[in-house]
Formats: sequence, structure tokens, C-alpha cells
Amino acid sequence: MGATTSPSLQVAIGERFRSTRRQTIALCEPLTPEDMMVQSSPECSPAKWHLAHTAWFFESFILREFLPGYRLFNKDFRWLFNSYYVSFADFPEKRIRSSFSRPGLDEILSYRVYVDRGIEDLLDRNSDPGVLKRIELGVNHEEQHQELLVTDVLNAFFTNPLRPAYQSEVPKSTGSSGPAPAMFVSFQGGLVDVGSTGEGFCYDNELPRHKVWLEPYSLAVRLVTNEEFAEFIAAGGYRKSELWLSAGWDAIQQNGWRAPLYWSEENGEWRVFTLRGEFSLAQVASAPVSHVSYFEADAYARWAGKRLPTEFEWEAAAIGTPVEGNLMDSGAFLPQPIATANGDDGLTQLFGDCWEWTASAYLGYPGFKPLEGSLGEYNGKFMSGQMVLRGGSCATPKAHIRSSYRNFFSPETRWQFSGIRLANK
Amino acid sequence: MGATTSPSLQVAIGERFRSTRRQTIALCEPLTPEDMMVQSSPECSPAKWHLAHTAWFFESFILREFLPGYRLFNKDFRWLFNSYYVSFADFPEKRIRSSFSRPGLDEILSYRVYVDRGIEDLLDRNSDPGVLKRIELGVNHEEQHQELLVTDVLNAFFTNPLRPAYQSEVPKSTGSSGPAPAMFVSFQGGLVDVGSTGEGFCYDNELPRHKVWLEPYSLAVRLVTNEEFAEFIAAGGYRKSELWLSAGWDAIQQNGWRAPLYWSEENGEWRVFTLRGEFSLAQVASAPVSHVSYFEADAYARWAGKRLPTEFEWEAAAIGTPVEGNLMDSGAFLPQPIATANGDDGLTQLFGDCWEWTASAYLGYPGFKPLEGSLGEYNGKFMSGQMVLRGGSCATPKAHIRSSYRNFFSPETRWQFSGIRLANK
Amino acid sequence: MGATTSPSLQVAIGERFRSTRRQTIALCEPLTPEDMMVQSSPECSPAKWHLAHTAWFFESFILREFLPGYRLFNKDFRWLFNSYYVSFADFPEKRIRSSFSRPGLDEILSYRVYVDRGIEDLLDRNSDPGVLKRIELGVNHEEQHQELLVTDVLNAFFTNPLRPAYQSEVPKSTGSSGPAPAMFVSFQGGLVDVGSTGEGFCYDNELPRHKVWLEPYSLAVRLVTNEEFAEFIAAGGYRKSELWLSAGWDAIQQNGWRAPLYWSEENGEWRVFTLRGEFSLAQVASAPVSHVSYFEADAYARWAGKRLPTEFEWEAAAIGTPVEGNLMDSGAFLPQPIATANGDDGLTQLFGDCWEWTASAYLGYPGFKPLEGSLGEYNGKFMSGQMVLRGGSCATPKAHIRSSYRNFFSPETRWQFSGIRLANK
Amino acid sequence: MGATTSPSLQVAIGERFRSTRRQTIALCEPLTPEDMMVQSSPECSPAKWHLAHTAWFFESFILREFLPGYRLFNKDFRWLFNSYYVSFADFPEKRIRSSFSRPGLDEILSYRVYVDRGIEDLLDRNSDPGVLKRIELGVNHEEQHQELLVTDVLNAFFTNPLRPAYQSEVPKSTGSSGPAPAMFVSFQGGLVDVGSTGEGFCYDNELPRHKVWLEPYSLAVRLVTNEEFAEFIAAGGYRKSELWLSAGWDAIQQNGWRAPLYWSEENGEWRVFTLRGEFSLAQVASAPVSHVSYFEADAYARWAGKRLPTEFEWEAAAIGTPVEGNLMDSGAFLPQPIATANGDDGLTQLFGDCWEWTASAYLGYPGFKPLEGSLGEYNGKFMSGQMVLRGGSCATPKAHIRSSYRNFFSPETRWQFSGIRLANK
Repeated sequence: MGATTSPSLQVAIGERFRSTRRQTIALCEPLTPEDMMVQSSPECSPAKWHLAHTAWFFESFILREFLPGYRLFNKDFRWLFNSYYVSFADFPEKRIRSSFSRPGLDEILSYRVYVDRGIEDLLDRNSDPGVLKRIELGVNHEEQHQELLVTDVLNAFFTNPLRPAYQSEVPKSTGSSGPAPAMFVSFQGGLVDVGSTGEGFCYDNELPRHKVWLEPYSLAVRLVTNEEFAEFIAAGGYRKSELWLSAGWDAIQQNGWRAPLYWSEENGEWRVFTLRGEFSLAQVASAPVSHVSYFEADAYARWAGKRLPTEFEWEAAAIGTPVEGNLMDSGAFLPQPIATANGDDGLTQLFGDCWEWTASAYLGYPGFKPLEGSLGEYNGKFMSGQMVLRGGSCATPKAHIRSSYRNFFSPETRWQFSGIRLANK
Repeated sequence: MGATTSPSLQVAIGERFRSTRRQTIALCEPLTPEDMMVQSSPECSPAKWHLAHTAWFFESFILREFLPGYRLFNKDFRWLFNSYYVSFADFPEKRIRSSFSRPGLDEILSYRVYVDRGIEDLLDRNSDPGVLKRIELGVNHEEQHQELLVTDVLNAFFTNPLRPAYQSEVPKSTGSSGPAPAMFVSFQGGLVDVGSTGEGFCYDNELPRHKVWLEPYSLAVRLVTNEEFAEFIAAGGYRKSELWLSAGWDAIQQNGWRAPLYWSEENGEWRVFTLRGEFSLAQVASAPVSHVSYFEADAYARWAGKRLPTEFEWEAAAIGTPVEGNLMDSGAFLPQPIATANGDDGLTQLFGDCWEWTASAYLGYPGFKPLEGSLGEYNGKFMSGQMVLRGGSCATPKAHIRSSYRNFFSPETRWQFSGIRLANK
Repeated sequence: MGATTSPSLQVAIGERFRSTRRQTIALCEPLTPEDMMVQSSPECSPAKWHLAHTAWFFESFILREFLPGYRLFNKDFRWLFNSYYVSFADFPEKRIRSSFSRPGLDEILSYRVYVDRGIEDLLDRNSDPGVLKRIELGVNHEEQHQELLVTDVLNAFFTNPLRPAYQSEVPKSTGSSGPAPAMFVSFQGGLVDVGSTGEGFCYDNELPRHKVWLEPYSLAVRLVTNEEFAEFIAAGGYRKSELWLSAGWDAIQQNGWRAPLYWSEENGEWRVFTLRGEFSLAQVASAPVSHVSYFEADAYARWAGKRLPTEFEWEAAAIGTPVEGNLMDSGAFLPQPIATANGDDGLTQLFGDCWEWTASAYLGYPGFKPLEGSLGEYNGKFMSGQMVLRGGSCATPKAHIRSSYRNFFSPETRWQFSGIRLANK
Repeated sequence: MGATTSPSLQVAIGERFRSTRRQTIALCEPLTPEDMMVQSSPECSPAKWHLAHTAWFFESFILREFLPGYRLFNKDFRWLFNSYYVSFADFPEKRIRSSFSRPGLDEILSYRVYVDRGIEDLLDRNSDPGVLKRIELGVNHEEQHQELLVTDVLNAFFTNPLRPAYQSEVPKSTGSSGPAPAMFVSFQGGLVDVGSTGEGFCYDNELPRHKVWLEPYSLAVRLVTNEEFAEFIAAGGYRKSELWLSAGWDAIQQNGWRAPLYWSEENGEWRVFTLRGEFSLAQVASAPVSHVSYFEADAYARWAGKRLPTEFEWEAAAIGTPVEGNLMDSGAFLPQPIATANGDDGLTQLFGDCWEWTASAYLGYPGFKPLEGSLGEYNGKFMSGQMVLRGGSCATPKAHIRSSYRNFFSPETRWQFSGIRLANK
């Protein structure tokens, strides 16, 4: 007889599965079937595709493997909704996902119901910890796609020249009083342990837990705000080559960047497009700046006479901090200002609001082992040319984030909620 | 008092307007709102966009100008659905039309109804020939977009890896008996008049009527078939540089072309995708080959020891021939074989089935004058780098085509129903 | 016994061969071996390559075929210096010609001497008209490359940030008095014969001689000047979309063109770079504008309320005019103003100064037959996507040009001496 | 009075300056002036440009600053031979360096002599340690360009279809007996100090010296050989996606890579092009594989069940090892096999033969401070998107390399002598 697990874990995973699946559907509430077709840039996917692909993940890596007698919902879906698992099946080029008008949304919703029943069936009869762990992986996978779905919708609505809003009502706190002074909190460094402790779920790229040596450092108590970033722009930040990495300088020339993504200038005033429509800069002055590339974060830090933290400085500072903040669960869907942050209570905005670019390249930890089989492609094969981001954003589910969590994107990426926390020697 | 026109013309234009508008909607019958979002290549547009843009044309160039007190349906639509009339208004980049999830299909249909009422209103109170002529232009414009809508759907469904069919039922004649022998009909040439006679509607690019000198020539009685083109492929046609124009040779290398668009090879057999699903080559052997570029048409002709006709050889041969054939009105939506064609009855397939690539570059006729104002951009500004096609296709409305009609595309274009008629000295 | 030819023709061809070969070397007089390595754009070739390729042509298509016992100078050269004759041999990608540091210039000069001796040998013992005709073709081929060599040097020296001059001394006439008024000369048109009469050498693309019908037309007595073109710029010509073909409008945006090639703006004044160094616009105000694309020529004509002539209007007007003008033989190496041109003496600048863009696409004449074998690739395979230019330039050898001569380049080409003659209804 | 330095240091720097400058010229011995014009890829530069740019460096950052009354050799050279120091002066686009036929080689050689005299003058009268340090920087800069000059010549000669050899004579050891078994040497790791100790010259990117924590690890005693890499190819290494980073898989598809750069297949056998001409694979079987990208090094390691070392594992293992090996000074100009390496004597080939790709991204050390002023652009601005290589190659001057030396290139780079050392556990 195989290993079994406590009924409570089984129940907990089941509940987490159900609520995550419900949340994905809830996120689509403001969208029409036509909205869910849009793929406005090659790095984005249509919302409908996210719905289908997350069902595909449960079907392909759980039901197919573990549920005896499971029959595929539609055998074409096996490859049609594969994203990039080369060793699992063929997959269509990413850029043509916007041609998937068929299967229609109704069929995708049926696919999700069918897969949900399969997982419930599996949960009913199976308490194997390996299976539960795999379901937990599927849940975490779906949470990642929830965030992508939201950021892809933002990109889609920005591309639409009419610029519709995802959420019409503006949350109370937007446009609140000015931000607290950007004080710095000191940390003594030394030989610290980083990476997952193994308690609770983690991805393979958070392991093995290992030691790193840190020099003494300090971190800003809060994120850089829109207002502060506007000063950088006004000071000619985008025109001073000495502030930029060489690749960053090339990127801003080639792309014609002179402000964060979703900013536009109108009659000399900056406008900021969000999931809740467009605001004047003044309205969001105190909110954290978002949608900047690594290059812009790095240049800003150099201009400010500071630097970006490494991922381990960030993690060492965050260990033990409860996961609280402006995450997806708050329903704000945009970064929010903080009332006060004087450093007495330590760092703020560690979790939520914006992913924080770090000065660390995304590489495997010493002794890194990817998952076995096709799931080994989940994280490991992207370990080149990308930078690590930490802390989650206003589009990250609260249950998804933790201090050891490593997000990663190429340095020119701007369509995620990516912001800036300064570090100092 | 201004010029007036006979009531019958007014009635006739009204009827033509209504039936054309109905036909556009009828073409969308097999499509879902999601299908109508797809833009599968930069040269294509979503079906929903075609619906909107054709309404926009009537609104912008007719109602705005001629209907007193007309109020725009939505002032954003003025630029949102402009295609390329630089002098009229700004317009979005063509490639982002697939991001127009809003306005939704329902709103576009309301837009069409609103515009229809405007035109009816105008027809009721106005019999000015200039206005009627402009409405006739709008009708012809919409007919062009009907054809584009159909060819864009074909491209969209081919791009979708599931390859759905637009029409499921296969028309009787597909897969009929073999084609008639490709005999040639002789013409004596001489000094002939070409261009529109001015009777009935024509575009500015069909004028002025003028003389050209033609040497004696002959034309094949029918179009080249799929079977014949497959022989060219089998004979290594795509690998023999001596058969190709230099730019064509470059194009087939760069694009990896080795067969017409929508052909694919499976286990050594050619499959041909159409609006009625995928067929084996054998099933459509006798039908005209379609979706070839000018380069492929030209190379085929060279391989066959023949050449392509000039647009004037074609026109001189077609003058006086009644407009009949496998046009959109037949409802086949794919090129069809002919039963017999021995040349006794003259040329066949002149109208419909496939547009016929000619050896003529698309240039202005001697004394060419574009329409006044923004409508001058309709045809004239494309007079470089394109080749003329003649005769219409199975996606061209019958009312739209005539012997003086000049279609034009760049020589690498393949997504239209474009085929081959051979000429001989 | 084969056909023979008169001794005088044999002598004449021999002399023409020798003087052409000498002239090629003379053109390199101002160049260093390092200069002769530069390939400053993909459409250009290094001067050394021109020296080698023109020897290769005589070797490959004449000595190899007709001189018994001829041994190749170096068997690698057979493919190394092939330009684009796919059916003759492989050839290196054009863009890597600048890597041919070996063979060195000395070896290429030896190659030329070796080939020269071969041709002399052949001329001594052979009076076959076919052979003489082929040598004549080789001479004409070399003349074309003389022009390319000169225009490629201009491009190379312009690319070099130091902008050296090819010829330092400035010819007297530059900066002369103002141009004559741009009057128009009328022609009655009708049914005219165009194409080579068959007397003297011609390329295959000038045949067959055939009839075309021309409506009455008129041509400007001289070319458009730099000063006139500067007015077009000053009037915002490059910013008015209504003046441009659609492809031209795209081209000027993508390339950032706002003046002819080799013009640059310095402190609000235009400077014009030439083979004789850089001039202020004032110094060359009366000289014909050069280095404009077809798109710019066409836009200028539209702005001026005129049009470009067709190639046949040009030819019909030029037939019978003696070939005289500012051709390569004048040694000016830049377009020159004319003293007076009131139309009483007919058209001026027909030959030389600048190639004149025509409104005709480059296509085969009715019944066109390319040369047999690999030489069939000389002209025929370029018959798509190009426009015809007529009349030769200041870099065209006088012996090379004639009224039936058809030059051709793609419409965005600017590195040739290409200018504008206006036509009027 | 400022700080002074010991006469012996002044003498030593002088001698090092002279020998380095002589060596640069010596490297050009086998080259013609035409060879020195070639720029065969955008990442390469012409040899003549290297000669000029290294003189420019001494002129711009030393003579201009420190030699009273120094007059520029040619004021245009100030920007003409600037490479990428944005804050110093404008500079031409890198890709047009092959258009610099003027100034000719003779003038560049005079420029070098002129600058040499200036430096001698400065050395005669100045013993300021800051000045000496700057001259030392200039010497190191020139050494880097010596290596680039050599690797750029290799690329140029490979691009030339005739594939000339830089050195004709083949060194004795090539084609020697088989390589020693690839044993591994163990290291215990722990908290180690890395970075320059500050003794002797170092670049800013080797500082500050700092601590890192290393887990126990082992390194292969020698580099991977051509023969071993050929086994990877034969085993389908380039076709197995599971071996590759995602960006690497994309790179090999897009570039069509299926072997290291400079390998070509002929009749089923691999040929390897080198600075000493082309060899069969058998002839160089035991030599280290070179000219592989990071992606290929990483994929090879994964296939072999090993991994690449981090830069700190490499450095910790190399500290204290004397700098000896097949460096530029050996004159071999290609990687060489080793006779025996059983690990008893520790690691071999640490210095020379091939730069060793490490698994470390090129980032600043904790507390990194770039040099002041324009020289701060030397290293710091490239700290994104690049990987670190360690150990020098057969084209690296012996005096240039050390255990703390960090070379860096983007992961797809192949034109340097870049090879593979495996790490384990």
C-alpha cells in the first residue's frame, strides 16, 4: 500500500483547488467573449486561452497520469493547448493563439467543468501525497495564469484605441495623500540561508535551500512612486546615456521609450492607463510606479544614487514577514499608495503592488534539480537572459506568493506589474 | 435647381444598396462573434472590422457630406474604422484591428442599421445623380470587402490549427470528371480600345478609355487546374531557378514555399484546404489552381512554355462576353472544374473561379485622374509594385465584376483566389 | 565553314574592347587598394570586385566557350566572381564581397591581363560574328560595371565619416548661371515603333521592336534642378501624404528620408556630397537633382502638377537625337547645369547627367525572348518590381547609351545618378 | 608635490608598454592592407581599426589628459576611432568601420608612432602613479584588442570563401595522441574570498574583493575535446530539446546551428577551420573544442550529466595556480591537446587554450564602483544579458590574464575561443 496523507490535507487541497478555479472564472466576469479573443502582443495570450490551458495542465499532468480510465475531453486539445512543453506534445506557435475562435468560449467552459469533475473524482478516491502535490502544482500553475490573464487584459485594453476599462469603479485609496519619505532600513547581512525551507508548496527553482554571504545593506521602506519616477523623466533621465546599461540604452532608442508602459503624454501632461481606466499623473502620484523594465529600474536607481537589491538581500529582509499587502485578493487591480512608512515598522509593500526588479540574474541554485519529466521544463529551461523579480503584485493571488518565490522576466519586459525598490550600501 | 435623375435609377440604386448590405450580413451567418475577431495575418482584417468599415464608408463619404443634420453614430468611429484615407482622418495601425473587442458585434450591427436608415433617408429625399453615384461607389466598396471578408475567413480558419470549415456541405460539382484539354483561342490584336466605356459604374482606375496596340495572341480556353499545377511541383518546378523571376526565387526561398497557399503535404499526398474543409488533391484535381502568387503563376507559365497574358490581351478577349461564371452568387465558395471547353464556344472561366494574374504592372492609364478629395486615395496611391488581376473569383459578387475591372496585388500575394490562365504568342 | 565578318568589324570590336578595359583601370586611378575593398551597402560592390567580375564575364562566357585550349586563370574564380548566374555556377552571397581581401588587387590585375591576352588571342584567330557579338556583349557588360563602380565609390566615400572626394578638382561649369526656364516640348504621339532597330548592339530587353500607341504629350526641356527640388522640400513635400504613392510614403517614413541621398543638413543649410566633395546647395543649385528614388520623382511631379513620362514617350522623343551630353567621357562625374534651354532646339540633357525615372514598370516587350543559356539571366529575370530609367548619367560611358536603352531599378533605389524629367498631358 | 613612484615601476611600465605595442604590430605581420579592411560580422572590427583604436585610447585618456601641450594627431580621429564611450565623444556606428579605407594603413601606422612618442615623452617626465596606472590600463586595453584582432581575422578568413590561413605552418603538437581521461578534481568550498587582492593591475569589475559561500564541488581536469563534442553531435545533441535552455533552443533553430562555429561538413566528415587553415576532425580530435556558445556549452554539460562551473568555483580553484598555458605568447594560435592529465597535478588548461564559459551571469560585485568619468563605461555598462568566461585563450596575452579576470559575452557568442570545462556536484 502506498503512502497516504491526512484527510485534512486532502480536504485543504480540494478546497484550494475549487476556490482557485472559481477565481479564474470570476476574473473573466467583466470580459466579453470577444475580449477573451485578443492577443495584443506576442508575449500575451487571449484570456480564453488561459482558461483552456489551465484546464489542459490538470488534464495532461494529473488526470491522464493518475485517474484510471480518464478519457480526454477532446484529443486535439492535448497539443492545441500545450504552451511550451516540448517533450510532452507538439504545440502551435504562441503568436497564433488569437486565431483560436474555435473552440468557442462555451466549449472551453465545458472543458473546465469536465476537468473539474475529474479532479473531484480523483480527490474522492485518492489520498496519495504525490497526487495531492501534483494537484497543488496545478493550482499554483493556475494562479500564475490568473496574474497573466489580468496583465494580458490590461495590454489588450491599452492596445484597443478606445481604451476600455476592466473595472470601472475606482477604489477609494487611489489619489490619496502623499507617500511617506523613502527612508532606508538597514540589514547586517552575513551568512544567511535562502531558498524554500520545504514547508508548504514551492517551485523547483526555490530549491535547494542554501547559504549565501551578504554584505551589510539597506532597503527603501517603500516602492518608488509615479511622482518620483516622473521627476526622473523631467530631469532628462531617458536622454542621459550615462545612467543606462548599454543594452538598456539600445532598448530605449529602438523602442522609443520615454516613460513607463501605459503612460502617454497629452498636452504636456502624463496620463496613466490602468485596469480602472486612465488617470492623470496627479491622481496616481503617490502610487508605486509600475510597468517599467529592468533597464528603467536600474537607470532610475543609478540616477537616485542608489542601486537595486539582489534577490537574496530582498529575501533575507522578507523572511518572516507575513504575506500581506495589495495583492489580487484586495480587488484593487492597481498599485496603491501607502499612508505612512517611516521605517519603524520595517519595510512596507514587500508583498503585492508591484513585482520588484532585483539585480540578480535568474539562475539555478547550487545543486538545482528540475522536476522529473516534462514538468522539468516548467522553470529550468528559462535560466538564461532573465532577471529575478520578487514579492508579487496587485495581480498576484495572496495564496501564491512567499518570501522565497522567484519570478523572472527578460530585462526589457514591461507588461507585468513591475516596479522599483531601492537598495543602498 | 440641380440635376435630377430618373426615379427608376433611384429605385435601382436603392435596391442594389439593400441587397448588398443584406448579403454582407448573410456572409457572416456561419461565423461566431469570436470568429469575427480573428486577424490571422497583417494583410487580413477581422470580419467584424469589415462590417464596421463598410458602414463607416457610407457614413464618412455620403451621410456626413450629403444628409443634412446627420449625426455620427459614434464620433470615435470616424477614425477607428478608417482604413487608409490619410487625408480624411487618423487611423489605427492595420495590424491592431484584432484588438477591437469593443465595440462588440452587437454594437457594430446597430451601427450598420443606423447607417442603413441614413441612406434610406437620403434616398427618399434626394435624387441628385452625384449622390446616387456616391452611393453606388459605397456599394461597390462594400462588395470588395465582401470578397475580402471571405478570403480573410479562409485564412483565419487555415491558421486555426483545428482548421474548421466555413461551409460544411460540399457542392455537387466538386470532384467531377477531368478538365477539358487546355486549347488556345486566337485573337488578332491590332489597335484596340480598352478601359471603361463609361456606361455603368466603374472605378477611376478604369479610365480614361484609350487605345493600345496588341500583337496577335492566343489565350487558353480555361484556367490551369490543381492537377496540372501538381505536375509542375512534381517536376521540381520550385527547385529550378531558371523558371523563376529573381524576386520570385528569393520569395520562395525566404518563405519556404513549395506549393500554393493552403496546400499541405501529408504522407506524401497533397491536401487542399478550402472554405468547405480539406480535400485530397484527387478530389479537386480538375478545379482551377488557386492561391498562387504572381511569381508562381509566372514560373508555371514559363515551365509550360507559355506566358501570362497582359491585362489588355485579357480585356480585349473579354469585351462583350456576358458576366457569368462561378462567382460569389453561385454559393460554391471554391473554384470549380468545367465540364468541357474545346474552344468552340470561346474562352471559359473568364469571370469567377479565380482572379487571373496578368503580366501587366498596375499603373495609371494615360491621362488618369483620381477622384477628388480623400476618395482619390481609393486606387491611385497603390500604383507601384503591384500586378493587375482580371476576371473576379468565386468570392466576387457578380454585380461587381466587368471586363474593364482591374484588381491589383503585390506579386507575392497568395491569400486571394488567384489563379492562372496561359497565353501564347 | 562558318559565317565570317568583315575585318573592319573585327578591328573595331578589338579597339572597343581595349579602350573599355583601359577605361575601367583608369577609373580606379584615384583609389587605393583599401578603397577598393569597401562595400558600403548590400546593393553596392567593392571596386576590386568589379575589376574581377568583368574579367570573369569574358572568361566564363567567351574564352571558356570559344578559345580552344583556354585554361582558367584560377578555377576558384569560376564561382567566386560569379554575380548571379544561378545556372552557370554557385556564387557567394553578395553581401560578403567585402571579405575578399584575398585575392589581392595585384592578383586581380594579373587576372585581367591574362583575360585580355585571351581575348586578343581569340580576336586574332577568330572572325566568327557570334564570337564578336559575344565580345561586344562583354564590353557592354563592363561598361555597366564602370558605372556601378563609380556609383559604389560615391556611396563608399559618403559612408566613410571623413567623406573623402574621388576627384578633387572641381569642373568649371559647376555653380554656373541659373537654369533655363523649364519649358515643355510637345509631341503628337500616335502609333510609334519602339525598341531597337537591330542596328548596332542592343540588349535582349530592347527587343522585339514593336508598336505602341501614344496620346499627345509634352516633356520638359531639361531635368529638374537641385534648387527646384529644394523648394519641394521647403514646401513640406516630404510631409504631405497626398503627394506620395502609398509604398513611397511608407518608404520615406521607414527610412527617415527628407531629402535626396547624399544631401545633409548643417545649420539649416543643405550640403550635397558628390564625387568631387561636398558643396553647398547654392553651389550646385542649377545642376539636375540626383539620387532620388522613383517615389521622390513621382511625388515631386505630382507636387508640380505634372507627371513622369512613360518609357515610350521618352524613347519616341529621343529617337534620332545624337548621343551627346554630360556622360562619363566628359569626366565631370557629377550632373551639370545647362546654359540655356528654351525648347527651340528641342529637349536637352536627354543623354547623360542623370538617368530619368519613367512611369513604366520594367517588363518584357511583346514576344520578348531572353538570350539562350545562362546569359538569359542577364536581364529577363529582373522583370518584376522595377521601374525603367532612360538616358544614361554622368557615370555612363557614351558608347554605352542609346535611345532604346532600358535601365531598371526598384523604386526605392537612390544610389544611382537618378533624376527627374517632367511630362505633361 | 604629488605622489611619486619608484623608478623601477616606471621602467617596468615603459617596457610593458613598448612590448605590447610591438606585439600588436607583429600580429599584423601575416596580413595585407586589404586583409586589414575586412569586417566580416557586426561584432567584429577590421584589424586596421584595432590598430587605430588602441592608439586612440592612449591619446584620448592619457596624452590629452596628462601630457602638457599635447596636440591631437588628427582632430577627426577623436570621434572617428571612439568605440562606445558615449560620454567622451560621438562615434560612428560600429557596422561601418569597414568603410574606413581612409585613413590608409600608412597613416594609422604614423598615428601609432606619434602616440608612442607621446607616451615615451610622458614616461620620461612623469612618475605620477595615477598616470602610470592609466598607461597600464591602456596596455591592458590594447591586449584585449590583440585578442579581438586575432579572433576577428579568423572570422574574416572564414567568411572569405577561399578560406586563407593566418599562419601556414602547423605547430608540432596538433594531432597528437589522445587526451587524458576527463577526471574530476574535488574542492571543498566554504566561505571563500574572490575578486582581485589589489596586487597588480585589475579591472574595476574584479573589485571589491568579497566573500562567497561555495558548496563542495569538483571540476574536470581538462577541457572538453573536439572528439567528445563530436560525440554529442552524433548522439543528436542538437536535436534534443530537453538538453537546451529555451533561449538556446531558439538560437540553434534560428541560426541553423548544428556544430561549433568554423566547423563544416563535407562528405559526412567534419572539417574545422582555424588560423592555421582547415583540418579534418581527426587531426584536431584531442584539442579542446572551441567556438561554442554558452548555450552549446550548457547543453553539452547537461548531456554529459554534468554542469558548468560558476565563476567563483573556477576562481577558487585557480587561485594560486601560476599563469601558464597555451596563451598567445606560445604562438600556436589554436587550442592544443594536453599530453596527460590524471588529476594528480590538479587542473590543466586553466589558463589559455579556450575561455571557459561559466554558469554565472556578468553582474557587479557587491559594492562595485565603475571608474570615474568616461572610463566608467569600460566594463560596467555591459552588466546585463552576458555570461562570465574565465581563464583566457590561445589568443590572450600571457601578461593579461589572472585568476580574478572576468571576461563576458552574450550567451550566443561563438567567434571567441570559447570552450567547456565540466563541473560536478
